[in-house]
Amino acid sequence: MRYPNKIRKENLNSIINYKNRGMSLENALNITNKYYLDNDIAVIYKKPTPIKVLNTMYKTGKKQMITEAYYQEKSTTDYNGIYKGKYIDFEAKETTNKLSFPLSNIHIHQIKHIKRVLDHGGIAFIIVMFASINKIYLMPGDILYKNKDNKRILLSQFEKDGYEIKEKANLMIDYLKIIDTLYII
Amino acid sequence: MRYPNKIRKENLNSIINYKNRGMSLENALNITNKYYLDNDIAVIYKKPTPIKVLNTMYKTGKKQMITEAYYQEKSTTDYNGIYKGKYIDFEAKETTNKLSFPLSNIHIHQIKHIKRVLDHGGIAFIIVMFASINKIYLMPGDILYKNKDNKRILLSQFEKDGYEIKEKANLMIDYLKIIDTLYII
Repeated sequence: MRYPNKIRKENLNSIINYKNRGMSLENALNITNKYYLDNDIAVIYKKPTPIKVLNTMYKTGKKQMITEAYYQEKSTTDYNGIYKGKYIDFEAKETTNKLSFPLSNIHIHQIKHIKRVLDHGGIAFIIVMFASINKIYLMPGDILYKNKDNKRILLSQFEKDGYEIKEKANLMIDYLKIIDTLYII
Repeated sequence: MRYPNKIRKENLNSIINYKNRGMSLENALNITNKYYLDNDIAVIYKKPTPIKVLNTMYKTGKKQMITEAYYQEKSTTDYNGIYKGKYIDFEAKETTNKLSFPLSNIHIHQIKHIKRVLDHGGIAFIIVMFASINKIYLMPGDILYKNKDNKRILLSQFEKDGYEIKEKANLMIDYLKIIDTLYII
């Protein structure tokens, strides 16, 4: 990213901080996954949102336009891919709650999917951004699964059983660094 | 699948054959992946088609309707998931050509994606159905990559370097059986 020369370093930092505060978790993960891809570290993509198309039309000389469609429920998680030969799978969520993450944010079939991935030898987790306190945690899938019948996971449990992901100056959140410490890969 | 009792076995076979002939590769893979999932063999899904949504509206009491959207180019392949701890990734294509598979069917960035997956230790391949001769082949990703500058892959090369997948009576095409013979997993 290039800034005009007249922006001094302290201003640059404040711009980055401002951007970070306003940046969605999805954007941060896009930047991060692109960094992993461009630097040949991992191949991880966000899956497209499932949409059921009911009607399309062609305008003369234009490409096919979808004129009636509906969002569908996701059957799996948002992100998957490969890292050091391992299958990686995760869901990312933001909450404005200060003290807990409501599990209504994650469908039970997504939690079951995460459990399946773990059972088949993959690495599965969720990344949760507590937007109001500007903290991001990675929570391993097995701990999420143990909590599946609860209404929420407390912030204190994220602090205890999860792993904080610090944002870097280049706007990326390096979650694979935590995966490196959790698994011998 | 249940059939009325009065359908005798020979009729049942002809129904299945008829269904197979008319069935798309995508449907066969849906049935196969569901079988793998239901029997806890593998967790493999088709990714949704990427669609760029430009406009939506709400009708009173109805859910959000997408009124203007466009299909986008895929950046990766159609299918991925996990099998015996390994990352699996593939693209599936049908051709009506009798003697070759035109590589215009697969984008170069999809071939590059397949190469990346191989480089990171995953299992990547394409499945090609030659509809006119009713044959389905699995071709390993490295052989696809070696052919990336060619216009087509000949059927004879599928016969030589690929692996035929036979359709089963229950309408599934058991491609993981071939993966088992190719990799010690």
